[in-house]
Formats: sequence, C-alpha cells, structure tokens
Amino acid sequence: MKICRFNDNRLGIVTGESVQDVTGWMRSFFDDADLPGDRLIRALPAILAATPPDLSGPGEALASVRLLSPIQQPGKIIAAPDNYHSHLAEMLADQSASHGRAVGTLETSGLFLMASSSLVGPSEGIKQRFLDQRTDYEVELVAVIGRTVSEVSEEDALSAVAGYAVGLDITLRGPQERSLRKSIDSYTVLGPYLVTADEVGTPDDIEINLTLDGAMKQHASTADMVSSVARLIAFTSRFYTLHPGDLLYTGTCGGVGPIRPGNVLHAWATRPGEMTVLVR
Amino acid sequence: MKICRFNDNRLGIVTGESVQDVTGWMRSFFDDADLPGDRLIRALPAILAATPPDLSGPGEALASVRLLSPIQQPGKIIAAPDNYHSHLAEMLADQSASHGRAVGTLETSGLFLMASSSLVGPSEGIKQRFLDQRTDYEVELVAVIGRTVSEVSEEDALSAVAGYAVGLDITLRGPQERSLRKSIDSYTVLGPYLVTADEVGTPDDIEINLTLDGAMKQHASTADMVSSVARLIAFTSRFYTLHPGDLLYTGTCGGVGPIRPGNVLHAWATRPGEMTVLVR
Repeated sequence: MKICRFNDNRLGIVTGESVQDVTGWMRSFFDDADLPGDRLIRALPAILAATPPDLSGPGEALASVRLLSPIQQPGKIIAAPDNYHSHLAEMLADQSASHGRAVGTLETSGLFLMASSSLVGPSEGIKQRFLDQRTDYEVELVAVIGRTVSEVSEEDALSAVAGYAVGLDITLRGPQERSLRKSIDSYTVLGPYLVTADEVGTPDDIEINLTLDGAMKQHASTADMVSSVARLIAFTSRFYTLHPGDLLYTGTCGGVGPIRPGNVLHAWATRPGEMTVLVR
Repeated sequence: MKICRFNDNRLGIVTGESVQDVTGWMRSFFDDADLPGDRLIRALPAILAATPPDLSGPGEALASVRLLSPIQQPGKIIAAPDNYHSHLAEMLADQSASHGRAVGTLETSGLFLMASSSLVGPSEGIKQRFLDQRTDYEVELVAVIGRTVSEVSEEDALSAVAGYAVGLDITLRGPQERSLRKSIDSYTVLGPYLVTADEVGTPDDIEINLTLDGAMKQHASTADMVSSVARLIAFTSRFYTLHPGDLLYTGTCGGVGPIRPGNVLHAWATRPGEMTVLVR
C-alpha cells in the first residue's frame, strides 16, 4: 500500500497517478493511547489486515495535491553518516565539506539524530537559512520503523520496518554537531508517500537519484551502502528502543553539492516513488 | 507552581512534602489538536490563570509516590556541550573522557539532540548498558520551553521558558556522536517536578549539586556557565523552531565521573528541587 498525507492533514491511498482520500477509514483504526510513536504507524498492521474501502473512484490527481510528510510527528529521526562508499570518498577529498572531521565506521561514528521539528513534506519545500554558508542536498532512502523493538538482531531487523520513503537530508556545512546543522526547520524532507514494506521487498538494491534544476547529481544503488538497512537498525537498537514511526535516514551517496534559493530538486527511488522539492 | 507526573501517569501539584492529585482538573485544560509539543505545557498558561482546586487536603507524601518525568513526550531534547568553565577544564585535562575531541565555543560546537525515548523520571532509575565502557553522571539545570518560538532574541528568550527542572545527562564515553551516546534508554533523567518560571526567577544563579553514594561530586552555580540559558535559547532558535515541552539541558559542571550498577545518585538545585536516582 502507498499511503500519503496531503492537503489539510488528509490521508490517502495512492494508486497509479491518483490519490483516494481515506482519512475517515484510516483514522478509525487510530488509538488514543498515551503511547510513544506515531498513531498512523501504530494502526498500520490493522489497516493492512482490513478490507480496504472502494478505491475505484477517480480520486484526485497525485500531481495536484499538496504532499506533506507521510509521518506527522516521529518520536525520533535517526541518520547514518558516511554510509555510501561513493560519498565517503568525496567527503575525504573535500575538506570544505567535511570540515576536517575524521570519517569513521559505524562503530566509531555511530548514528546521529535530527529534530522532528525539521520534518516537512515535498510540497512544503525547503526554506534556506544562513545563505552565506554552504548548504548541500543529500538524497537518501528512509526506513520507517513499524513496531517497538530493542536489541533486535540483524536477521530480524527488517521485520521491524513498516515501509520506505525518499528523504532529503539538507545539510548546513560547518564545524558544529550534525544534530544541529541538519535540524534546521524544513531541512528534513520525507515523501512522496510511505510504501509499505511488503511492496518494497529487500531494501538492498534500491536505486536513489537526485537532479538539481534538471541536471543529474546523485545516482546510486543501496547495494553501495557501507552498512545495510538491517545492520543500521540492529546497531541503533542496541542503544535505544525504536518506536512506530521513528525514521531512519540511511545515508547519502556521492554527488552532494550546494543548493540556492530558486533551485528545484527532484528525488526518486526505484520503489518508494518520486518527489519535487523547491528551495526558497 | 510545582507540577509532577507520578504513579500511573497522574498529575500532581507539589506543596511542601506532599502531592495533591489534580489529574482531572489539569487534563480538562488539554487540547486534542494535532499540534507539535506537549499537551501539559500547551495548557500551562490556562492552568496558571485558573483558580486552582482545593489543595488543603493531606495529599500523598512526595517521598512515597513514583516520580515520572514531568514532561511526558518532548518534541526534542536539546543539550549544550562544554557549558561550564569547570567542566571544560576537566574535559581538556582528561583525554579518556573527551576522546581527543576539540572543545569549542557555542558557535563552533553548536548544541546536540538527545532522543525523547531516553527520557525517564527519577523513580524509574538508570539501567546501565555497555558495562565494559565508561559511563558518567552529569547533573544539569533543564529549561522547559513554554511556547513556540523561532529566532527569539537573547533579551526575550527567557519569556519562552515555562519552567525548570533538574536533569541527569548520563553519558557513555566514546568516539561516537553525542546524540547516540547520550540517548540510551533511561540515560536522560528529568525531575523531581516542573517548577514554573514565575517561582524560579532568574536561572543565572541557581546552584546544582550531585552526590554519588552520599559523596559530594558536583557543585556549581549556573553563574559559571559559558553561555547563559537565554543565550542558548536564542542561539538554537536561529536553527529550529522551539515548541512547548521541548527540553534544554544546559550543560554540566566539573566533577563528572563514572557510575556503576548499585550507585545512588542524589541531584538537586536551589529552586527546582531534589531527586534520588538509582543505577541498576
């Protein structure tokens, strides 16, 4: 199932190029419990097990709706630094981007957090700040955690994934903590919709792509990842409990570069779909 | 007003050494909106403006209730590294604690994030992981953000604070990102209750203290901070919007040291109160 959040906090199922508004149906599965995690994702197993509503109507054109982040308020957003061999190589070569930081392994660098207040959908766009400093695009595959897990094994890790989406991890370059530079309002983009894990299959051979104003900038397969999605999940879950709706940005590939207001980013993956994001 | 969350998610007003259960009264001010931020803190201005319920009954003894984190689910937890002159000096002197990281200013280091899944109240205690690696206590003054602000000036910053509490920022030492090492489940402690800003006054002369198994380990005044609470809030709000219930851990003072299961930490501040936390 492809689930989007759109317009004024509506929920939709995407079929082809159209969206069916299923807000009432989906929200009927939501609980009101004071639990950690996202209500849509907590309800997802029940939604997928239920008989879906009639989707034969014309719906709305996907291109005409305002796409929000499919996850509204994740408990945490986790991100992997230096996780593609191609990006590692370019960060080692370009000291102006890496600010002299040592590039490490998953064990020595760990993962970092981004603020959920930085999260937007593709239609909200990126409002660039600090125009006197370099700010880069980074396209990533994002795994959405589906259930509460702690200390999960690498073998079982993918069973904790609800689905996948395409992410942009917009990055102010500088010496400061990553969790600050990457948490600026609107710098974490998620879209175009959530594709549930059953429709994606293995996350280890997904192509991710990004163009800037139509020019191809990033293109890679997740097969080039240093640590697989399963390994990232297993590693982080040794430190903290993962909850439904937590997001895992799995790192970017080579080809990162600066953005300016007015740029148009187009990002897509072979299975989670494509999105257009404006920089303003 | 001193507000605690206790036992099975009850809300209480603390008067002297007792707690009055005001759960129903406080929750009557909660909204059900899909808004960012904590519902208790969103409701706080209305709670403070209302006529309080009768608090003349005996209540429950503060020492007998199970104290939870006064903020249940903060949107983000922000923390300041190296923010006391005394702690800066010890981190520079002890490479086994700092892992050779350069110590910087607020402008060059920025602030980092901790996962809200790591947050517990004093009565829940700290469950130590990675017993083969050094893990330290750090006592801190915590400011609870009261309203949505972005790019607030240093002069106006304290008007955005709902209140204060005492925090422990339990830290696994190592080379990894701070936002990972400090986000282990139960490593972010907040308590004993929220003291609203009107009762605290200036946060610039508060004493923070910590004993380990009865021995004095940390003792400082927030006057020794490198960057004041107001400056930290103004600085972070240039990067991201602050929401009601966001927590700001303002950094620890000198005297940090390792914990082991079985240790008893006692932490207090001159105005936000005192708490006892077990390491297990």
